[in-house]
Amino acid sequence: MEFLDDKLLLTSDLAVNLYNDCAKDMPIIDYHSHLIPQEIAEDKAFYNLTQLWLKGDHYKWRLMRNCGVEEEYITGDKSDKEKFRAFAATLPRCAGNSIYIWCHLELKRYFGITTPISPETADGIFDKTERMMKDGSFSARKLIKNSGVTALCTTDDPIDDLSWHKKIAASDFTVKVYPTFRPDKALNINKPTFRDYVRTLTGKKKPAVKDIKNALTERLDYFKSLGCFISDHALDNYIYLDCSDSEADEILEVAFTHEYLTAEETEKYKTYMMLFLAREYAKRNMAMQLHLCCSRDNNTGMFALLGPDTGFDSIENSRNPKKLAYFFDSLEREGALPKTVVYSLDPNDDKVINTIINCFQGGARGKIQHGSAWWFNDTEYGMKSHLKTLSEYSVIGNFIGMLTDSRSFTSYVRHDYFRRILCNHVAEIVNAGNYPADKNALKELIQGVCYENVKNYFGLKL
Amino acid sequence: MEFLDDKLLLTSDLAVNLYNDCAKDMPIIDYHSHLIPQEIAEDKAFYNLTQLWLKGDHYKWRLMRNCGVEEEYITGDKSDKEKFRAFAATLPRCAGNSIYIWCHLELKRYFGITTPISPETADGIFDKTERMMKDGSFSARKLIKNSGVTALCTTDDPIDDLSWHKKIAASDFTVKVYPTFRPDKALNINKPTFRDYVRTLTGKKKPAVKDIKNALTERLDYFKSLGCFISDHALDNYIYLDCSDSEADEILEVAFTHEYLTAEETEKYKTYMMLFLAREYAKRNMAMQLHLCCSRDNNTGMFALLGPDTGFDSIENSRNPKKLAYFFDSLEREGALPKTVVYSLDPNDDKVINTIINCFQGGARGKIQHGSAWWFNDTEYGMKSHLKTLSEYSVIGNFIGMLTDSRSFTSYVRHDYFRRILCNHVAEIVNAGNYPADKNALKELIQGVCYENVKNYFGLKL
Amino acid sequence: MEFLDDKLLLTSDLAVNLYNDCAKDMPIIDYHSHLIPQEIAEDKAFYNLTQLWLKGDHYKWRLMRNCGVEEEYITGDKSDKEKFRAFAATLPRCAGNSIYIWCHLELKRYFGITTPISPETADGIFDKTERMMKDGSFSARKLIKNSGVTALCTTDDPIDDLSWHKKIAASDFTVKVYPTFRPDKALNINKPTFRDYVRTLTGKKKPAVKDIKNALTERLDYFKSLGCFISDHALDNYIYLDCSDSEADEILEVAFTHEYLTAEETEKYKTYMMLFLAREYAKRNMAMQLHLCCSRDNNTGMFALLGPDTGFDSIENSRNPKKLAYFFDSLEREGALPKTVVYSLDPNDDKVINTIINCFQGGARGKIQHGSAWWFNDTEYGMKSHLKTLSEYSVIGNFIGMLTDSRSFTSYVRHDYFRRILCNHVAEIVNAGNYPADKNALKELIQGVCYENVKNYFGLKL
Repeated sequence: MEFLDDKLLLTSDLAVNLYNDCAKDMPIIDYHSHLIPQEIAEDKAFYNLTQLWLKGDHYKWRLMRNCGVEEEYITGDKSDKEKFRAFAATLPRCAGNSIYIWCHLELKRYFGITTPISPETADGIFDKTERMMKDGSFSARKLIKNSGVTALCTTDDPIDDLSWHKKIAASDFTVKVYPTFRPDKALNINKPTFRDYVRTLTGKKKPAVKDIKNALTERLDYFKSLGCFISDHALDNYIYLDCSDSEADEILEVAFTHEYLTAEETEKYKTYMMLFLAREYAKRNMAMQLHLCCSRDNNTGMFALLGPDTGFDSIENSRNPKKLAYFFDSLEREGALPKTVVYSLDPNDDKVINTIINCFQGGARGKIQHGSAWWFNDTEYGMKSHLKTLSEYSVIGNFIGMLTDSRSFTSYVRHDYFRRILCNHVAEIVNAGNYPADKNALKELIQGVCYENVKNYFGLKL
Repeated sequence: MEFLDDKLLLTSDLAVNLYNDCAKDMPIIDYHSHLIPQEIAEDKAFYNLTQLWLKGDHYKWRLMRNCGVEEEYITGDKSDKEKFRAFAATLPRCAGNSIYIWCHLELKRYFGITTPISPETADGIFDKTERMMKDGSFSARKLIKNSGVTALCTTDDPIDDLSWHKKIAASDFTVKVYPTFRPDKALNINKPTFRDYVRTLTGKKKPAVKDIKNALTERLDYFKSLGCFISDHALDNYIYLDCSDSEADEILEVAFTHEYLTAEETEKYKTYMMLFLAREYAKRNMAMQLHLCCSRDNNTGMFALLGPDTGFDSIENSRNPKKLAYFFDSLEREGALPKTVVYSLDPNDDKVINTIINCFQGGARGKIQHGSAWWFNDTEYGMKSHLKTLSEYSVIGNFIGMLTDSRSFTSYVRHDYFRRILCNHVAEIVNAGNYPADKNALKELIQGVCYENVKNYFGLKL
Repeated sequence: MEFLDDKLLLTSDLAVNLYNDCAKDMPIIDYHSHLIPQEIAEDKAFYNLTQLWLKGDHYKWRLMRNCGVEEEYITGDKSDKEKFRAFAATLPRCAGNSIYIWCHLELKRYFGITTPISPETADGIFDKTERMMKDGSFSARKLIKNSGVTALCTTDDPIDDLSWHKKIAASDFTVKVYPTFRPDKALNINKPTFRDYVRTLTGKKKPAVKDIKNALTERLDYFKSLGCFISDHALDNYIYLDCSDSEADEILEVAFTHEYLTAEETEKYKTYMMLFLAREYAKRNMAMQLHLCCSRDNNTGMFALLGPDTGFDSIENSRNPKKLAYFFDSLEREGALPKTVVYSLDPNDDKVINTIINCFQGGARGKIQHGSAWWFNDTEYGMKSHLKTLSEYSVIGNFIGMLTDSRSFTSYVRHDYFRRILCNHVAEIVNAGNYPADKNALKELIQGVCYENVKNYFGLKL
């Protein structure tokens, strides 16, 4: 197999055929991204690879730090070209890393370049791509559009006025761009930013729990009025501790009058608000995403220097996934469990999660989803393992599939990478004799996972 | 490879040869099942696929619920044919799921049908199989006998009078059917059913710990007199907390006089009774099965509606497998550790368990066993992973092999599925150059795992 | 593939070529072993396979116990030949176990014998090898030298006078032999041996914390003066609890005046001493090895009989890997984090560890390493899984590679086994289309992992 071969990752004739006939040309619904609405609204253009790749991509920064590259070449003042050279010197050591293959797939897809990146080729590639980008043709909208995207979701704070979203909607951009409701800051009662945030959210100097709830539902309605159909929550670990209305009030009082909340108080307040919000999502037929088991900002010195999302996060080992069952059960007893997509950063949880969510299915196809392999696990073996688990512990045909989770406009090659792995996975099942080689059945299965399932799950009209 | 090909799962010539020459025709000892003795005694016949497959099989119900099928088609009042149609519409989405392949293997083995089940084929398959079953030829005994079974164990409560077992033994049925001693209800001191159960067990209104122990050993002797050689215990998680005689008495007193036991009290009582029973098993040369890390009845609403074992259970993440070492060590110090088979529903424990049990081997070949991949893990990759771990962290040649764990008389195809995976696993070791292609050695190894080891382990004369 | 074929484990032409051209003939730096310096100094000779293989190798003892072999044939008084026969009867059951393949690779490499070991061949092999060993040619130095080793590290207690190391250094032995600083006994404050140990270490009847610290740094300087560049620590589990100087003093006081320390006190003292030592390593540019998640001496009866390291240890399930992040962060804030190699016996931690260590890289290539698959995990699939994780969650090109961790002078075949797995792993990446088939890049990558990285990491001049 050649590097970046058309048959990349496809190890059988059936896999090749499934990919070419069923998967390759399907459009994309990127239902979870961190694209910046302003950049889409203004159709921001990029003029070199460092701008496109290395600004803000902490995945790449981690690899450079692992190779001993000094910080000035990563987040510091060195020129774009010097930074690219440092990155190019890092890559050849990264055989088997997603970054290695993603970069080269992006280079092939968006620039037609198949030269491997290395210290020897760095300058040539940088210069050639810079020339191609000079005319402004590498802009947000063009990149999205040319990637076959029909709809995408950004990630937005409840207090965002969504003005950029309005501008996009009012423009002639044919790709649907939806906001996602992500109220983490209203739940992170143990963070120093909490007080100011809920003051802004509610417009009150010392809001009550009721005020926070009211403000959140008001913003939720506003988000929904602009097309939002999905929310997102980042939780360090599984949470569930019963918390009454009056307890919630007391905990909030503590948060406003003392420096310190116990872990139990924090978990109670978060449980209380998560249950409240889940009910609101269910009422509005909106879906809820739960991102679990992440430990952020482990390197406190670098956090002080660079802030969050700069490459100092890790998998948090899961302590009590059973709390997810308590959470779901509490909602289900009220008939208030919304569609939910669960992601755990700890892949040791994949099987537990699948067995838990299948205790709460019903009323819709694949109502509770085990989301695509997330972040550090978004790798060849990570995705393979996720798909195997889904097939064996759940129903793969109901899976809503891949997302980019990215800040970059060229990350859509990840969908292509996923589709290859998916087709190869299904072909392996068939080639082992476990499933019939029925073209129509296989096509329905694969196109479902690539596109149709997510479209139906969110009820999108595209 | 064709669907359901003779070479199903066998990826090399050596694997095919090993399967055909060593594994395929070996008889079966199904040492752990949930078959109902009455149905065997009365040779119950089945008259359509819904009766055979969908009544009571909560594995299948979970898949249907995942696909949004309404409960009336699952556990409700819809006709057998309507239920089968709903199941047939579910299956094509389940590529890679054990249910998919098991159903089709059963269809091929017991009906000679190789048509894939789908909405289009559902009625044809239902009608054709119904005609074949009309003459009562799909009966418990015929299905068992035709499956090559020489012996099987059911799962029985200590208070069961085993009258059906006596009837089977007195009949002309040539397959040996043994009871298994499963005293969970006498150990689950935290369950609401506990008081009534131990009253019935002991015949006393307020039994002492001593009474419970006496009653259990009396029943154990009775079970043994009817051929029982194995016990079984379901434990939510690993337990070990020292508990003296007087503490056990006090805890039992609390259970009879208060509503609530602490988690610590419950664990102490369970540890106490498990140690007591283990000693009794050891005295009688009986084996003990430990089923660990299961969280049951997570969906309390559905539990209220349908009761236990209806598809609402999950893997419980393991908290402290080291307690298994404490438990074994406590018994080993007294020379009272019986043969034991350990199953954890959390596959993350597979390696830990193997390293723990190999601290307590001795006196018999493979005295402490890591039981076959259990329940949710009884899948292609689940079994492969279990066998790999067994080979690398223990001694595969001493493994007592597969069991069905099933309520159905057509589940014996799972042994065939397992044997294919076993032969392929061994062939992979040989084909990588790690083991000689010595026909006799391989035959002994494979036939050992398929049949001879379990026969010798339990000292069965068949 | 033939048994022990030249292509053993190599499943593609590329893998074969990479192994032959890049890996096979690279020298070995065995940076972690348990070889006994005296045996090297005196060039101890071995005269039969039982002496070479079965004395002290508890890996093999566990397999024999699993097969029901009586202890007198394992650690008891039976003759060397009888013991070998018992081992030979065990091996054929161990398909897929590292011991099976290592033994045969050693037999092939050091004796030119490719006959599989079995009850039938046991005597022939024992006799033939005994004849070959008669002339004393199977001696420590000859075996090391003939294995292509250029440098190795033994494991030594701080109170060791290193006199054997001095003798080796003064001799004409051309292989470099370095001590490793392993101060476990000064940290295990909860062990009955602690008091006597720190008395010996400090020369004081009741040493203060300061005395222990001074004694350790003095010994560390002494070790360094004899070439030591690496330390080693065995920790049951992840630890991190803040502990002030005065708290450490108080805890030490308790250890000298009471029988019992709480788990919290123990963890505090260990954290305190680990932080202290890590700073000292960083000052001296020495590396630190952390061996984590091991539960030792689980079978207390056998421990009383045979002592430690006799085959009764297990994986300890990890409880809180995040403490590793706290530990690193605490050091990093002071600029005192030394080069570190982290090994966890629980392979469920592999991904968590990689994401944690990549929060603390910088200043050197691969400064914080995820050490090679350790002990029970040092298997074909264990190593494959470790390499996959390293590639996907970190930078494989910076990996310092394999070590033997062995007490035996013929264990160097493990490096060969590792190199085959490495080459096959890299070839799989290339053959899937994920990396270019660039000979020079692949050679640099593979020779780096085999030899060059470890040499550079420790700054060895060889």
